[in-house]
Amino acid sequence: MEDEVIDQVEPEEEGYGLDNRTVAAIRLAVAAGDRVRLGELLEPLHPADIADLLEQVDSGHRREILLLGSSFFDGEVLSELDESLREEVIAFLPRDVLSEAVRELESDDVVDLLEDLDEPQQAVILDALEDADRLAVEQALTYPEYSAGRLMQREVVRAPEHWTVGETIDHLRAHKEALPDQFYHVIVVDPGIRPVGYVTLGKLLSSRRSVKLTELFEESFRTIPATQEEGEVAYAFNQYHLISAPVVDDAGRLVGIITIDDAMAVLDEEHEEDILRLAGVGDSSLSDRVVETCRQRVPWLLVNLGTAIVASLVIAQFETAIAQVVALAVLMPIVASMGGNAGTQSLTVAVRALATKDLTGSNVWRVVRRELAVGVINGVLFALVMGAVGVLWFGSGTLAMVIAAAMIINLGVAALAGILVPVMLDRLGVDPALASGTFVTTVTDVVGFFAFLGLASVVLL
Amino acid sequence: MEDEVIDQVEPEEEGYGLDNRTVAAIRLAVAAGDRVRLGELLEPLHPADIADLLEQVDSGHRREILLLGSSFFDGEVLSELDESLREEVIAFLPRDVLSEAVRELESDDVVDLLEDLDEPQQAVILDALEDADRLAVEQALTYPEYSAGRLMQREVVRAPEHWTVGETIDHLRAHKEALPDQFYHVIVVDPGIRPVGYVTLGKLLSSRRSVKLTELFEESFRTIPATQEEGEVAYAFNQYHLISAPVVDDAGRLVGIITIDDAMAVLDEEHEEDILRLAGVGDSSLSDRVVETCRQRVPWLLVNLGTAIVASLVIAQFETAIAQVVALAVLMPIVASMGGNAGTQSLTVAVRALATKDLTGSNVWRVVRRELAVGVINGVLFALVMGAVGVLWFGSGTLAMVIAAAMIINLGVAALAGILVPVMLDRLGVDPALASGTFVTTVTDVVGFFAFLGLASVVLL
Repeated sequence: MEDEVIDQVEPEEEGYGLDNRTVAAIRLAVAAGDRVRLGELLEPLHPADIADLLEQVDSGHRREILLLGSSFFDGEVLSELDESLREEVIAFLPRDVLSEAVRELESDDVVDLLEDLDEPQQAVILDALEDADRLAVEQALTYPEYSAGRLMQREVVRAPEHWTVGETIDHLRAHKEALPDQFYHVIVVDPGIRPVGYVTLGKLLSSRRSVKLTELFEESFRTIPATQEEGEVAYAFNQYHLISAPVVDDAGRLVGIITIDDAMAVLDEEHEEDILRLAGVGDSSLSDRVVETCRQRVPWLLVNLGTAIVASLVIAQFETAIAQVVALAVLMPIVASMGGNAGTQSLTVAVRALATKDLTGSNVWRVVRRELAVGVINGVLFALVMGAVGVLWFGSGTLAMVIAAAMIINLGVAALAGILVPVMLDRLGVDPALASGTFVTTVTDVVGFFAFLGLASVVLL
Repeated sequence: MEDEVIDQVEPEEEGYGLDNRTVAAIRLAVAAGDRVRLGELLEPLHPADIADLLEQVDSGHRREILLLGSSFFDGEVLSELDESLREEVIAFLPRDVLSEAVRELESDDVVDLLEDLDEPQQAVILDALEDADRLAVEQALTYPEYSAGRLMQREVVRAPEHWTVGETIDHLRAHKEALPDQFYHVIVVDPGIRPVGYVTLGKLLSSRRSVKLTELFEESFRTIPATQEEGEVAYAFNQYHLISAPVVDDAGRLVGIITIDDAMAVLDEEHEEDILRLAGVGDSSLSDRVVETCRQRVPWLLVNLGTAIVASLVIAQFETAIAQVVALAVLMPIVASMGGNAGTQSLTVAVRALATKDLTGSNVWRVVRRELAVGVINGVLFALVMGAVGVLWFGSGTLAMVIAAAMIINLGVAALAGILVPVMLDRLGVDPALASGTFVTTVTDVVGFFAFLGLASVVLL
């Protein structure tokens, strides 16, 4: 294990992404107003790395970089940029740079760019597009947010059912200019433009010209409804190893195509959302300002304050017991803390399993039984440990028994709440990542304090 | 927001993955010993869904399904199966079914299958392979675990620099049988078999036969060292929108290729690891048994018990103060809990930003300053709220001031610890997702109790 960690350090250092030396050199060039040097430094960078650069510096430096190196900020950099910064950067770019930047993008990237902007900025970008592109983008925007219709690209390479390999290749050569930058399948459609199958370019390249497309269909073929939620789309790509999939409207007609790189980006965003929501942080980005960050975090802290006060009210019921045996005040946070941790373990496993569809109606009761068993076993284990600690520390067998019993109760309840709360929230259509934590820790705090102090009152007083 | 949630319910229900009705029908068929019906139900399922089925049922049902439907368990199902179940399923499958299953797989899938098995099971599978495949797999196993060398597939479509589009297409048609199932680029190599560029199949298909491959090179071309850590590989695919990338050895020679679907699977696994580690759960799967699950969760609970006891020791220093003012015992968990939550918010943002390389040496101090500012501002905000609660509840201005001051201190410290702890762990080469939580909550508990009770002792007594 130790060796592995050390082995990994080297490749990490020569890994991908921006390195600090480049960032430092760029700052120097900007400070010196050296446009040529800045160009030399930006030129070899991938648009995604330029976007990261803009995200990593503060807004003052950002403006200086944009001002001096405006020719490097093309559409790709814009579409790689974190949403929280797009408005700022777009507002700052000269109109002609912006227009040129936007025109290079494929329709799905323009849609992605537009959807988070205010109306006036949207209008500026739409105006910059050519008529056909603008129409395409406006149509895409009629699909619901976070749907396959927004995610798809409209440039599709398609062929009728009766075509052969030769006819298809001739068609591709003749329409070379109209082909999308990246495509991996030719979508075969019936006369009603409904997709019936697809052929990989590899098969097309390696088959004789006389072979019919229908003989080369791939088993992996699946269509995606345009209204489908994008998380579901990402799930399908990951589960079924799709590379691209045709998107269809309600009538089953081909309206676009989604490729795996977009699905991978969605998967990444969904994960980010889950991990941040579990911690009670909403949409969040390192480039957010202080006020913005406070605004994101206060709601959850406020909810937590509410639950903490509820837990305190439970404690307040036992003031007399605590006044008589102060050791109770010393030990009570241990019971609550252990319950909170055990609950978080269960709920995180449950939230993740719900997201990956591993936890379903058909195995939920088995998982609940397992969690309860785990909770009780761990409860007994830590009851023994804490019982021993109680005896050694306070020399009281009774106190030790009280804390041991409270531990078993709270770890059992924590395990149950940890699985049942996210499952119920999911059934109600609420994202379990968002709300489970609060419910579960409220339960474990209240039960933990009540069980420990309640038992103590009965037994010790 | 409300409407969105409701809108999403429908597509979810007709979404992907196994549905409960199918699972129920399969159970019925198995219970009835109806091999034909089971076949009808399994036949339309994707291998990934069959693997999910095996994961969702308990081990008794699993055996029954495997026994009755053994002809459906091919190599793909095996490679989709969760690692925790592979040994069990492989041990149970008849030797000939297993051999056939393994022979269908590409080399990267066999490697993935092998690396988690015990020696005897590895030997069974290696024996089932043909000589050439076995050699390829054994060579792949010489690369470090979780490296690009293990992830890559060895079947690469390559062409020398001087070839034209026509020559390449002729070559592909002539060697049709040897082509991998899925490939997206032809890798162009120099006489030393070092990759110098690649050409997309789309370009190959749409260009005239006389065009040289070197004229069609893609800008996105990047090579990946075989020893590179797989998380780094997934990062590169996601950051640079790669579809496939050639893998090279120390001498820069082409040894294999990694495709985006494998990179997407790694990204998904890394996320799973992060989210579970943040919650103090190690490698975990819903199909793990009770004992296994206890074993995974006990270590973190033990660590948490240690930190909870440390916090209790802090409380114990103030027993006399608590005995005199029992309200302190009632209010103290609020300060600790708010600190813990604020710390978790900061650390989750930091852990995620480290994973996505958004938090680097060049912006770390700016982010630390921001977190501290957010912590202090939120501290002041909740100091006011808790001050008011203190006055209303206990009618004591002094107590209210004490809790308000403790709140500011603890939320400030929580914010600092939340960012500094993961950054320092990362620099030390420890995964910040694994250990940050413990450190940060220890700090916030200790500081929270100490600040509140300490101030109270000074002011109130």
